[in-house]
Amino acid sequence: MTPLRAELLAIGSELLGPLRAETNSLWLTERLLDAGIEVVARTTLADDPALLESAFRTALARVDVVIATGGLGPTADDVTREAAAAATSRGLRREPAIVEALRARFARYGRPMSDTNLKQGDVIDGAELLQNARGTAPGQFLEHDGRTIVLLPGPPGEMKPMFDEQVLPRLRARVGSARVVRRRVLRIAGMSESGVDEIAAPVYSRFENPKTTILGAAGQVELHLIAHGNGDAEAEDRIEELARLLREVLPGRIFSEDGRELPHVVTDLLRERTLTLALAESCTGGLLSARLTEVPGVSAVLERAVVSYSNQAKIAALGVDEALLEAHGAVSEEVATAMAEGVLKASRAAVSVAITGIAGPDGGSPEKPVGLVYVATCGAAGTRVRKNLFPGGRELVRQQSTQIALEMLRRGLLGLPPL
Amino acid sequence: MTPLRAELLAIGSELLGPLRAETNSLWLTERLLDAGIEVVARTTLADDPALLESAFRTALARVDVVIATGGLGPTADDVTREAAAAATSRGLRREPAIVEALRARFARYGRPMSDTNLKQGDVIDGAELLQNARGTAPGQFLEHDGRTIVLLPGPPGEMKPMFDEQVLPRLRARVGSARVVRRRVLRIAGMSESGVDEIAAPVYSRFENPKTTILGAAGQVELHLIAHGNGDAEAEDRIEELARLLREVLPGRIFSEDGRELPHVVTDLLRERTLTLALAESCTGGLLSARLTEVPGVSAVLERAVVSYSNQAKIAALGVDEALLEAHGAVSEEVATAMAEGVLKASRAAVSVAITGIAGPDGGSPEKPVGLVYVATCGAAGTRVRKNLFPGGRELVRQQSTQIALEMLRRGLLGLPPL
Repeated sequence: MTPLRAELLAIGSELLGPLRAETNSLWLTERLLDAGIEVVARTTLADDPALLESAFRTALARVDVVIATGGLGPTADDVTREAAAAATSRGLRREPAIVEALRARFARYGRPMSDTNLKQGDVIDGAELLQNARGTAPGQFLEHDGRTIVLLPGPPGEMKPMFDEQVLPRLRARVGSARVVRRRVLRIAGMSESGVDEIAAPVYSRFENPKTTILGAAGQVELHLIAHGNGDAEAEDRIEELARLLREVLPGRIFSEDGRELPHVVTDLLRERTLTLALAESCTGGLLSARLTEVPGVSAVLERAVVSYSNQAKIAALGVDEALLEAHGAVSEEVATAMAEGVLKASRAAVSVAITGIAGPDGGSPEKPVGLVYVATCGAAGTRVRKNLFPGGRELVRQQSTQIALEMLRRGLLGLPPL
Repeated sequence: MTPLRAELLAIGSELLGPLRAETNSLWLTERLLDAGIEVVARTTLADDPALLESAFRTALARVDVVIATGGLGPTADDVTREAAAAATSRGLRREPAIVEALRARFARYGRPMSDTNLKQGDVIDGAELLQNARGTAPGQFLEHDGRTIVLLPGPPGEMKPMFDEQVLPRLRARVGSARVVRRRVLRIAGMSESGVDEIAAPVYSRFENPKTTILGAAGQVELHLIAHGNGDAEAEDRIEELARLLREVLPGRIFSEDGRELPHVVTDLLRERTLTLALAESCTGGLLSARLTEVPGVSAVLERAVVSYSNQAKIAALGVDEALLEAHGAVSEEVATAMAEGVLKASRAAVSVAITGIAGPDGGSPEKPVGLVYVATCGAAGTRVRKNLFPGGRELVRQQSTQIALEMLRRGLLGLPPL
């Protein structure tokens, strides 16, 4: 038996613009994986009755669980209920209890209720209702022909609690102790994707279960281990068996196996050691600081960051010697080190890191091309400096620079050899 | 006649992880809109032959143009070619010219070519080949039963130039001077979604064409105007007619109609006026600086940013009076103003902005709750300070804070009244 397979339908024309990725599906994928259910298709669909009906039919023909988000509102555009009913050849009944609750809700806010709102009381024959304490549109849960169909509201603030409180327990009951799927992500910074794969592939390719996928992002390589097993424990054991071997061939390289990103790992290391950190950033322009301050509780750790975009700022705010800037230029080993020393001294923090480089698209030269970035650490992470030449455009160079800075801090704090 | 409708199929199990949004489809959606083609469905699919075949069949039944990315590589997992052939009941022929090109490419890099690579030479009967100068997998372009099917490689570095150089001209020829769809996005900061809608809905709801969608993001509201017309000019005229009315009812509020985000707009304003900017950030932790430095060419404008997470940093690096911190606390109108003044003085920039607040999740109190954020400007943007109380979690508070800071700079520089 194979694990249950799910398809997610994200419904709403506004989700199909070029400007934004749809996020409900990412969240649901993670929750379903935790429950041992694998998502094999994610579809984003415009508000079009024929399109939606065909999407439900297609999904019902190929997966075990179909979860739709959106299109449950009161407007003419909201046709998810009708499409799901048509695809399952079931009727819709108007549920008086929901209509009453809607009327009460409108009365509470002192607003008149238009008749179009009544359709929010329509329930597919045979479906269970999912209460929505945070909005007007209830969800629906339907078992149909051995498939499970779930309709959820689109707003994440309504969808997420409804899923966690009412859908997940029902799905877990269906999965029971059947085959489940588990995933673990091993993260590595400061190595190329091919560099990691050369070492890891001989190990992971010996395993059919877990299956391993390697993914390169900016300044980071991820090994995704996905195992099937009879129950969580067996699947976890299979993952751990492979993870142990990968740790052996990549000693000190894997910075996280528990979902934490590198800023979180470094913050935790500093916090455990009660050390404070100061940053001096040039080409990254505050990105390292912004990434670190995404971590709640970083305020106990981060003393200050100075974004010294101009030479004047490097001299005045970081105490970099003007002669040094003239002799070596702002993008140099010497200035990187002086920036790290300067911000350490000014801030009285225990550890510092400095970044100076050319992020592009302009400002490069044959001697100092776009992508040339120096990173230096100082203080409790050791005095180290590294020359990097990053490929890619401005955003990639900036992102990779912050990753190397964080990995240098991590290695320095753990006493690992330099990158 | 209605404009052509497209569906995008993003193929690859690695795209279905919980950790990342698939990005090729966002890029393609924008390109297709520019060509007057509307995307009505986007599907991300695992590498599974039956799943892919059903996806092609479903798409061919409901749209005019089907574009698949990924699954054209040499491994057993790569089954896009086979699935598209099966869905159209067409055969595959092995093209000797591609096989020769593959052999030559491998020879050039001095690597042996395994037989599995041969399948990259398989072409669907009737399909035109799309050359891939940047990788091994060619694309394919097929007219089938009045539908267009396009197969593209998954790596963005190969997919994007192939689409622009070889697919877009063919699609434009098909669209011709038929009905096209155009879109414009009007962006507003510093107002709530309902606040904008109350003013804008009476205007845009009078129009069937363009159709308007309102979207609220963190600290930003967007009005998406989508018009159909016979040719670009007619569609653009329809959009401009509505946009002009919206500008009238929202005077000075729309900061962008050309795709620029607020950091770009503010950078351009400073550049036009040859003014330099200095930032003092507390709770936003460098996010404002990082957002501004995403804009190429910002180095001519940004003098420095100081991320003063600790009180010590506010005193030493920004010259904030210790007595002021004790009397009012770090999160206060007085300290925000002192931070803006301090960084302006230290940097000798022409304009400054300072942010201090409580981003959460900890650190709130009944008097100063999570979400309380003071923003102050100084110098050429005028001396102004604003108290804000933002809803949402840490990331939302931080994002909204940077938006308000940028909108205050914009309004100050343009001489518009305070928010």
